[in-house]
Amino acid sequence: MRVVIPFDATDPKTRLSAVLDASERQAFAVAMLRDVVAAVRETGHEPRVIATGPVAVDAPTTVDDRPLTPLVDAAIDAGTPLAVVMADLAIATPAAIDRLFSADGDVVLAPGRGGGTNAMVVRTPAFRADFHGTSIRDHRANARSVGATATELDSFRLATDVDEPADLVEVLVHGDGAAARWLVEAGFTVALEGGRPRAVRENRG
Amino acid sequence: MRVVIPFDATDPKTRLSAVLDASERQAFAVAMLRDVVAAVRETGHEPRVIATGPVAVDAPTTVDDRPLTPLVDAAIDAGTPLAVVMADLAIATPAAIDRLFSADGDVVLAPGRGGGTNAMVVRTPAFRADFHGTSIRDHRANARSVGATATELDSFRLATDVDEPADLVEVLVHGDGAAARWLVEAGFTVALEGGRPRAVRENRG
Repeated sequence: MRVVIPFDATDPKTRLSAVLDASERQAFAVAMLRDVVAAVRETGHEPRVIATGPVAVDAPTTVDDRPLTPLVDAAIDAGTPLAVVMADLAIATPAAIDRLFSADGDVVLAPGRGGGTNAMVVRTPAFRADFHGTSIRDHRANARSVGATATELDSFRLATDVDEPADLVEVLVHGDGAAARWLVEAGFTVALEGGRPRAVRENRG
Repeated sequence: MRVVIPFDATDPKTRLSAVLDASERQAFAVAMLRDVVAAVRETGHEPRVIATGPVAVDAPTTVDDRPLTPLVDAAIDAGTPLAVVMADLAIATPAAIDRLFSADGDVVLAPGRGGGTNAMVVRTPAFRADFHGTSIRDHRANARSVGATATELDSFRLATDVDEPADLVEVLVHGDGAAARWLVEAGFTVALEGGRPRAVRENRG
């Protein structure tokens, strides 16, 4: 099965701007991508990165600056079965990805928090992607509309995409790869704010 | 295996105050509790609710107003194996709960978002709970300190506790029980805010 990892190499992770500057966001996004590449590889698959621009990752890479939806549709058209795994799943494990790849269904969807879709397996070439808005609902509907069975993979690790400062605590608490190390080296630690754990950045003298 | 569901019957879900008044929060919290009771029952177990006060739920109920940590420790002391499932896991499915109950380990932990612990199975009576702060880390450490193997269950549905307005979209998108129906009847729907799906309340004339 082909596995593709789309990556936004152009000003990635803008919603982390409150805590990371542009070069830090770039470095952190690449660290997450490397973790996802490594996790996919441990399942026995060689992923291809499809990036909007050049990126420093040790994996076959195609540069393609189309938005996510036409990009994934083109990948489906190039051949199924196809797996798509987002590049910001910093706490994805090989076990979780293996569960995704092994699940039955013409289409297997791994929901992301907030109505998103963080990973999928497409075994039917008629299926179309739609990453705008509440994509998990759109993907369910798109599967139905082509008569495909859609199953959903119940994984916290695949549901956790890292977009906002509030997401960083998940990387510190559950991650053990390049992204978690990057955050620790950048001075992030877990602290309680109003009784709730948050990733906070220590003052560096 | 005994299964307990702790429930805060006294001013529950205060972090939903921005979108629900006190009586609505009470009704919604009970709807979520009923969904959790039903999901546990479908796994073939009869759960006991341990509530801080009287609650309108069709399940054996004990009133106990202690905080969560001593309450769970007392339940462990009363006999293992014991499962604890939080009452606000509105999108928990029987399949997810069954995976929790079936997982190997002296202690099985289901992480919640933000460093929490949303459900657990305790098979060793020496284990102690600690629901303050980053509880998933504390529970890992507490298992280690008594020589117990701790495994973690990777489930988005068990990781999703409903505490804040931003969590309601998960119930609308992934729920199909009493809590989802309650939100729909209360006028909540999914709408895009800044391109991201949110649960918003329609104006009712």
